[in-house]
Amino acid sequence: MTNDFSFQNTTKVHFGRNALSKLAAETAPYGNKILLVYGGKSVKRIGLYDRVVEELKKADAEIFDYDLVKPNPRHTDINTGGKMCRENGIQVVIGIGGGSAIDSAKAIAALAVAVTDNCWDLVTAKKPITKALPVFAVPTMASTGSEMDASCVISNLETEQKTGYNGPAIRPKVTFDDPTNTFSVPPYQTACGAVDIMSHTMDTKYFSRDDKMDMLYRMMDQHLKTVVKWAPVAYTEPDNYEARSNLMWAAAWALNSFMTCGVRQLPSVHAMEHELSAVYDMVHGHGIAILTPRWMRYILNEETAPQLARMAYEVYDIPKDTPVYEAAEKTIECTEKLFFETLGLESSLSKMGIDDSRFEEMAKNACGERGVIMGYVPLTPEDVEKIYRMCL
Amino acid sequence: MTNDFSFQNTTKVHFGRNALSKLAAETAPYGNKILLVYGGKSVKRIGLYDRVVEELKKADAEIFDYDLVKPNPRHTDINTGGKMCRENGIQVVIGIGGGSAIDSAKAIAALAVAVTDNCWDLVTAKKPITKALPVFAVPTMASTGSEMDASCVISNLETEQKTGYNGPAIRPKVTFDDPTNTFSVPPYQTACGAVDIMSHTMDTKYFSRDDKMDMLYRMMDQHLKTVVKWAPVAYTEPDNYEARSNLMWAAAWALNSFMTCGVRQLPSVHAMEHELSAVYDMVHGHGIAILTPRWMRYILNEETAPQLARMAYEVYDIPKDTPVYEAAEKTIECTEKLFFETLGLESSLSKMGIDDSRFEEMAKNACGERGVIMGYVPLTPEDVEKIYRMCL
Repeated sequence: MTNDFSFQNTTKVHFGRNALSKLAAETAPYGNKILLVYGGKSVKRIGLYDRVVEELKKADAEIFDYDLVKPNPRHTDINTGGKMCRENGIQVVIGIGGGSAIDSAKAIAALAVAVTDNCWDLVTAKKPITKALPVFAVPTMASTGSEMDASCVISNLETEQKTGYNGPAIRPKVTFDDPTNTFSVPPYQTACGAVDIMSHTMDTKYFSRDDKMDMLYRMMDQHLKTVVKWAPVAYTEPDNYEARSNLMWAAAWALNSFMTCGVRQLPSVHAMEHELSAVYDMVHGHGIAILTPRWMRYILNEETAPQLARMAYEVYDIPKDTPVYEAAEKTIECTEKLFFETLGLESSLSKMGIDDSRFEEMAKNACGERGVIMGYVPLTPEDVEKIYRMCL
Repeated sequence: MTNDFSFQNTTKVHFGRNALSKLAAETAPYGNKILLVYGGKSVKRIGLYDRVVEELKKADAEIFDYDLVKPNPRHTDINTGGKMCRENGIQVVIGIGGGSAIDSAKAIAALAVAVTDNCWDLVTAKKPITKALPVFAVPTMASTGSEMDASCVISNLETEQKTGYNGPAIRPKVTFDDPTNTFSVPPYQTACGAVDIMSHTMDTKYFSRDDKMDMLYRMMDQHLKTVVKWAPVAYTEPDNYEARSNLMWAAAWALNSFMTCGVRQLPSVHAMEHELSAVYDMVHGHGIAILTPRWMRYILNEETAPQLARMAYEVYDIPKDTPVYEAAEKTIECTEKLFFETLGLESSLSKMGIDDSRFEEMAKNACGERGVIMGYVPLTPEDVEKIYRMCL
C-alpha cells in the first residue's frame, strides 16, 4: 500500500520563448536591489545576461554581479556571496545557469539572512531553511531540476564533502524556463544533464522497495521514456525546440516532488557519485552514468529482476514476452548503450585518470555515519568499493 | 510546437489514512472561527464530520455549520453562506464532501470578503478572484479535482445558468486527501466521478488541436489508463484502498494544471453537459458519460481519427497494427462499454425521462454568445442539437 505523503510545490513557472518577458513584473514586488548569480562566460556569450539586465531595468533594478559560480559550488564562494548581499542590501537573488548557478543562488539567499556568515554552519545545522531572500531561477540546462526544488548542494573542498541544505524558503518563487536558452549547451553537457534527469527518477523512486501508486509508477515509465527519446535528439540537433523543451520540463518534474509521492527518497547511485564529485571534482551526470549500469548489475538478483525488467518493457520497448531475468539484463545493456554509445560518454573511471587508490576511503564516506547506504538494496562499504572497481 | 505557458499550483496536499491529523495545525495560523461547508447526511453518517470537529477542537476552534450543499450548488445558498461569514466573523472555510461542497466553500470564501452580497455579481464580473477567506478541502469523492484547482461552478436556477468564478485566492491552501473517506461512495457516484476525471483529461487536453508536449501527452495516456484500470475495481470493491487512492490522486491531477501545460482549455463535452445539469439538474459525470461517445462519433473523420486512435492503442490496449480509422472506432466502443456496461451508467437521455423539447434552446445556450463551441472540432448550435439527439 502506498505510504502516506505530503506534497506541495509553490514555484511559479513561465515556460517558453517569451518566459523572460515576465521577469521584471515578478521580481518588482520584492525589491529592486538584485544579485545576479552566474558563472563562466556562456550566459554572456549567448546574450542571456544582457537580456536579463535589459528586462530588470524596466523595473529600475540596481544590479550586482556574483560571477563565481563553478561546477560543484564551493562553500567559500557562497560565503563571499552572502557577504555581498549583506553589504549591499540585496533584496532579490537570481540564479542564471545550470544547477550550480541556481543552487548557489539558493545557498546565498539563505546565508544572506542567517545568523552566521559561514554557509557550512547551515549545512552542519541540518535544519530546514525557513528564512531566505526570494530566489528566482533562469535555467540554461536541463539537468538538476533545481529550478523547482527546495534544496541546494555545496562542496567543501577542504573536507572533501559534498552536501547541502534545504527548506521551503529557498525554493524559487518563479522560474523562467526558455528551452532556447539550452540550445547552446554542448553535447557532453546535454548528455550529462539527461543522465541526471533519468537518475532522479530511477535512483530514488523507480527502483525502490516502497509500494508505488500505480498512476505515478506509470508516469515514471513515461518520464524515463521521454528522456530516452529526446536526449539523443538534443545531442545531435542542439536547437531542436521540441527536444529541448521536453528535456527541460522533464528535468523540473523529476525533482519537484510529484513523482516521489509516497516513496521515500533513498538514493544509492547519488550517494556513491557524490564521492566522485567531491574527491575528483567530476561532472555529476557523468559520474552517475558510469555508476548506474554497474550498480544495476551488482544488485541484479531474482528479487530485483522484476523491477529492472519493467524498465525494459515500458521504457526500452523490449517485447513483453521476454523472460524477466533476461529483460532485466536488457535494461542494463540498453542503459549502457544509451549512455556510452548514443550519448558518447566515456564509460570508465580509469580512462578518466582515476585509479583505485582512494576507493576504500570513498566507499566508507559514501556509507556515512550509519555505515550503510539504505537504498533499494542496502550497500555496505565493501559493496560500494566493489561497485567502484567495476567502474574502472 | 508547444505553446508558451505559465504554471503554478500552491495547494499543499496531505494524502493518506492520517491526512486529517494535520488539520488543526494547518488551519490554526489563519484563525479559529471556522465555517464547515457540507451537505446531505453522508459526512455525518461516515463519522467524518465528528472527526473534523474533534481535530479542530485541538486548536480551540469555534465551529459554524453551513449544511446547504447540494449537487450543482445554488447561487442563493452561496449568498446565505456569505452572510453567515460576515455575521460571525468567519476566518477559515472548510469544504467537506464532493466537488459541490468544495466549490461551495470557495464561492462562499470569496463572497465573504467581496463588495457585493450576491455571488452572481462575482460570476458576471468575470474577474479573477484575488481576495477570499482561506479555503481548506476534505474531499470525499474522486471526481472534480476541485481540491487542487482555483475555480468553482455555481448554478442559477432562476436563469438556468451554470457557470462560476476562479482565481488564485480560492485555490485551497491545503487539502486533506484520505482515500478511506471515499470508501462509502456508492457505485453510481463512483462511476460518475470516474467519468468526470477522464473527461477532464480527454475533453480539453487529450483531444485538442494544440501541439502537446510529448512527455505530457504520454502522461495523459497513463492518467486515462489509471482510471480505466481502477474505476471498475472501486465500483465492485468499494473499500479497495489502492483503487480509491489512484482515483483520488488522478482526480486531483486531472485538473491541477499540470497536464494542461501549453494546451488551451477548450472543452466541448463539458459545454454541452452544463446545459443538461442546468436544465435537468442532472449529475454532471452522468451527463458527460452519455455525451462523450456520441460526441466522439459525431466528430470522427479522417482528420480526427489519429487522435482517437491513439487512445485505443495507448489506453485501451488495442493492438498497434489496427488501422487508424478502425482503432478510432474501437476507442468509441471501448468507452461505451466502460461507461454503460462496466460502470453501469444508463446510456440514454430518453430512459432518464428527457425528451427533445428543449434541445434547440440548450444547444444555443451551450454555444454561448459567440454562437459556437470552440473545442477540438468547432460545434455550431445545429451540431450540438444533433449530438443531443444522438443521446436520446
